[in-house]
Amino acid sequence: MPTKISPLAPKALAALPPIDGVRVGAAAAGIKYAGRTDLMAMVFDAPAAVAGVLTRSRCPSAPVDWCRANLPGGKARILVVNSGNANAFTGKKGADATALTAQMAASAMDCPVSEVFLSSTGVIGEPLEAARFEGVLQQLVGAADPDRWEEAARAIMTTDTFPKLATRTARIDGVTVTINGIAKGSGMIAPDMATMLAYIFTDAPVSASALQALVGGHVDSTFNAITVDSDTSTSDTVLAFATGKADLAPVEHADDARLPGFATAFADLMEDLALQIVRDGEGASKLMRIEVSGAQSDASARTIALAIANSPLVKTALAGGDANWGRIVMAVGKAGEPADRDRLAIRFGDLVAATDGERAAGYDETAMSAYMQRDEVTIGVDIGLGDGRFTAWGCDLTKDYVAINGDYRS
Amino acid sequence: MPTKISPLAPKALAALPPIDGVRVGAAAAGIKYAGRTDLMAMVFDAPAAVAGVLTRSRCPSAPVDWCRANLPGGKARILVVNSGNANAFTGKKGADATALTAQMAASAMDCPVSEVFLSSTGVIGEPLEAARFEGVLQQLVGAADPDRWEEAARAIMTTDTFPKLATRTARIDGVTVTINGIAKGSGMIAPDMATMLAYIFTDAPVSASALQALVGGHVDSTFNAITVDSDTSTSDTVLAFATGKADLAPVEHADDARLPGFATAFADLMEDLALQIVRDGEGASKLMRIEVSGAQSDASARTIALAIANSPLVKTALAGGDANWGRIVMAVGKAGEPADRDRLAIRFGDLVAATDGERAAGYDETAMSAYMQRDEVTIGVDIGLGDGRFTAWGCDLTKDYVAINGDYRS
Repeated sequence: MPTKISPLAPKALAALPPIDGVRVGAAAAGIKYAGRTDLMAMVFDAPAAVAGVLTRSRCPSAPVDWCRANLPGGKARILVVNSGNANAFTGKKGADATALTAQMAASAMDCPVSEVFLSSTGVIGEPLEAARFEGVLQQLVGAADPDRWEEAARAIMTTDTFPKLATRTARIDGVTVTINGIAKGSGMIAPDMATMLAYIFTDAPVSASALQALVGGHVDSTFNAITVDSDTSTSDTVLAFATGKADLAPVEHADDARLPGFATAFADLMEDLALQIVRDGEGASKLMRIEVSGAQSDASARTIALAIANSPLVKTALAGGDANWGRIVMAVGKAGEPADRDRLAIRFGDLVAATDGERAAGYDETAMSAYMQRDEVTIGVDIGLGDGRFTAWGCDLTKDYVAINGDYRS
Repeated sequence: MPTKISPLAPKALAALPPIDGVRVGAAAAGIKYAGRTDLMAMVFDAPAAVAGVLTRSRCPSAPVDWCRANLPGGKARILVVNSGNANAFTGKKGADATALTAQMAASAMDCPVSEVFLSSTGVIGEPLEAARFEGVLQQLVGAADPDRWEEAARAIMTTDTFPKLATRTARIDGVTVTINGIAKGSGMIAPDMATMLAYIFTDAPVSASALQALVGGHVDSTFNAITVDSDTSTSDTVLAFATGKADLAPVEHADDARLPGFATAFADLMEDLALQIVRDGEGASKLMRIEVSGAQSDASARTIALAIANSPLVKTALAGGDANWGRIVMAVGKAGEPADRDRLAIRFGDLVAATDGERAAGYDETAMSAYMQRDEVTIGVDIGLGDGRFTAWGCDLTKDYVAINGDYRS
């Protein structure tokens, strides 16, 4: 397990204010880790609107199945998340464990199980002993208070080297509302220890359907625009909850004229959390921002950007501080999207490496190499065919990634 | 540059017999490497039938463009391959360099440029100084002899740690014919230094169209079933040449009743060369064979097998000798193909890790770990839905891969 904090971690953790209608709890249930919290609950004393996006994996975890079944109800009273065990690929035992956890949580809250949301992250394939939550959950609900956000973010960490927190405010009809978010993740994804989970909370009176439109509308440019290792978790989960405690008339629809400011803040918070996950990428020493423009469509630009961000050869070059634009050409070529070799332009930051399909006239290897020493690098690729654009974020592939993932578990 | 030979290299190099109608030459043209050969030519004193498969990259190299233009002609007098420079992403200069090389080769052979085939492998984006081949090519053609196969295989190496050679015989109408092949490649693919090139030669009188059917029909289960790092080269090339010198009536069509034995030997040689490339995967210490069965179709099985073979988390687990079946589940899940988590079965060799979507009853971690210490590992995955099957080969992801690709070039 890594103990050193990622060199790309934010200089300071965000301090999250209370959100009216949310109480936060964390506890040590002893699932896998000794001497640390591994269970957190977000308690809504009155029902909150809920929306979310779940993994596209064809082999989802039991808690993902659980959330997928409850999301259409649009109401939440409690979110319970454990780390240390993903409850994934655990067969009928896994479904039983989520049902038992939900029953205990529903009984602690005196609510139907359909208003309980669950996530699990940690080792895959090990049965989760949900009976351990007995009593702990009841206590957790009782002791939850409005201020324990950092504790909650720490309780869901696995290979993460720092807790991920973000907060924003926005104004709706002159009233200030707050948006808080916490997340975990350290590979884009690894079923063992690095599932991506993110939870967003607001006191704005946003309906479940409007919230779903917000999450669904921004997930592609934020959580789905990051990659650490191209692997998709069985457990990826983004859930958003709105308590509606702010003194405002309800926002029923995503196209409500009062929503744009809030939507911007919401999307900005999603991006903030997503970037914190890349910054904690397993073994990462450098962050890369891939800006693709000139593609035939935005979707085409996205495929190209992710092909670059996921290429092991681009990622190892980044680790070596090598402005290896040849590998960018390779990644564009393998993406399978429309591209014309002889129109391609590539830059590192503002330094142009290639134009019109060959090395740029003023190519300066020394300046490029100096730029590549930074811990945040922008790679710009213009396809030269259309107006499609997309920005993705990734990180480098280092020997530490191999060590973290090759040495773990056995 | 790696100097140590891959631990997965064959114990001995295949000794290739002469092929009537082929003369082989190698020379040092001083393109990039000091003190080694970097140019090879295969000379056909009478026209040979030629067929081939080229990279699907949208950013192909200039020699790939050249071969694509000449393949429909179906006739070859000479194949010229240089290492040290890929002549990829070199714009108009690149096309000029191939044209100049082809003119020199055509003049040495006294043949039209349409019967010249070219490949280049090495650094991308650097203009290739084809003028260096002047004279050298003429000499090469003169000095070429029937026995220099190993020299030729060595002349096309880049990050390869051993030359790749294979030979087979087959009988057509009672006459023994020979098939020789050489290849290079050490990532599936890296535009810098690990493009996959393979060349196959036979004295059988097989027409260009029958040869094309053979290459095209077997490339998916051989060269397209291997992966080192999921990256697709700008230069991948497989070419097959038939001199027709064997004393046999011509084989015009791939469905010729006399061909099955030859086709089997041909496919077997392709698999042999493909596996040698994986065995020389950059930094590889273990070979994995992924056998997917029970998928909805063969195509679906292929997508799943390659998702497993390409997963960084599966590859690092293999490096660590970890029978991490949870990561196999993850890779099946991310492949996007039909799969039912609760029917999935996974084995390592004959050791069953999981059945019906959960850990197998007799799961024995000690036995699994012992099996995973081998340098060749079979991972079996049964999807449980249909009859689709596919076998892919890959290798592990080690710190040496990161070192080779992160430390190179700058």
